[in-house]
Amino acid sequence: MAHDRHEELLQALHECMEACNHCFDACLQEDNVKMMAECIRLDRECADLCGYLEQAISRNSLYVADLASLCAKICEDCGNECKKHDHEHCQRCAEACFKCAEICKKAA
Amino acid sequence: MAHDRHEELLQALHECMEACNHCFDACLQEDNVKMMAECIRLDRECADLCGYLEQAISRNSLYVADLASLCAKICEDCGNECKKHDHEHCQRCAEACFKCAEICKKAA
Amino acid sequence: MAHDRHEELLQALHECMEACNHCFDACLQEDNVKMMAECIRLDRECADLCGYLEQAISRNSLYVADLASLCAKICEDCGNECKKHDHEHCQRCAEACFKCAEICKKAA
Amino acid sequence: MAHDRHEELLQALHECMEACNHCFDACLQEDNVKMMAECIRLDRECADLCGYLEQAISRNSLYVADLASLCAKICEDCGNECKKHDHEHCQRCAEACFKCAEICKKAA
Repeated sequence: MAHDRHEELLQALHECMEACNHCFDACLQEDNVKMMAECIRLDRECADLCGYLEQAISRNSLYVADLASLCAKICEDCGNECKKHDHEHCQRCAEACFKCAEICKKAA
Repeated sequence: MAHDRHEELLQALHECMEACNHCFDACLQEDNVKMMAECIRLDRECADLCGYLEQAISRNSLYVADLASLCAKICEDCGNECKKHDHEHCQRCAEACFKCAEICKKAA
Repeated sequence: MAHDRHEELLQALHECMEACNHCFDACLQEDNVKMMAECIRLDRECADLCGYLEQAISRNSLYVADLASLCAKICEDCGNECKKHDHEHCQRCAEACFKCAEICKKAA
Repeated sequence: MAHDRHEELLQALHECMEACNHCFDACLQEDNVKMMAECIRLDRECADLCGYLEQAISRNSLYVADLASLCAKICEDCGNECKKHDHEHCQRCAEACFKCAEICKKAA
């Protein structure tokens, strides 16, 4: 089963998607939203692609490697933006993104 | 955090999405695909909405209750179709669908 | 064909999805992002569900009426938020949202 | 505006998404579903990524070129599978896929 081979990746994607969406929501509630604009944008990008890749893996898609390669790139970009900000939701999101990027690279 | 309040639901949605997509893939490899047509169709419906609802919950959407209500209905329909078939992937999928439907109803 | 019966709705959904995503992107570039936080949030909600409903209609989903009912509600909420703001992207988005809400109601 | 620069691509993606989802639905109603299994699978892949790329373009995503490159590949694979089958829905889908692949390549 595709989802057995990729269990670690599925878990990392799920956690990254949750962390990015939580960060998206929390950034929109910060006082200085302007400073978080790039973070908000990348959180959505990253959550959307992580969710998409979860679907692709679990339906045994032929394109998992291609999607994982792109997902690694987006996770890194999102992690690099998040780690600039001191908010706990940003730091947690950066951590989830970097972990997910590493596992994506192995599947790419 | 929205995703803390809904941890059980997020887990059930994730498992249901995986089970439905695995069933979708496995049904397309069966000898008698014709007999599985409705199952294939509902597997996609259910996996797509479960994935959508995971995103909505984790971004703290205002529409979680509405989506959970519809998701419960689709999970039940998919579970009812899957349980008609003896394939292990169908039986497992039915189980994941019924479990997810119950938890969706509580959030609806 | 499902997409023939729903041609007007598909077009309205497509235009609303584009307007919401454009408004999302433009809001994140405004000086006063803080004031746009609710708009950004609803733009994503609305764009995501419009896109989801386009997929559901064109695959002849059994759940088009349920999804259209929820989509009408989200389009109205997004339109009501957008019309509070003078930016051209918000006014255009409000217009697309209200138009889409009307057509969704007919399909609901 | 991102969606102005990419108007031709947005239109092609929308048409390809509709054609793939219509083909998915129609294949599941054919007598010989077994023969259509690969077509059903690729129709879903292609419709999902076309819809995803529409969203990405209209939110002015940084990753449009990467996604367009992968979308061109999936559109070609789906078009090549569809053109093997004489059903009108498959032939129309192949046409929409090849057209979309060409325009994706220009954006990649």
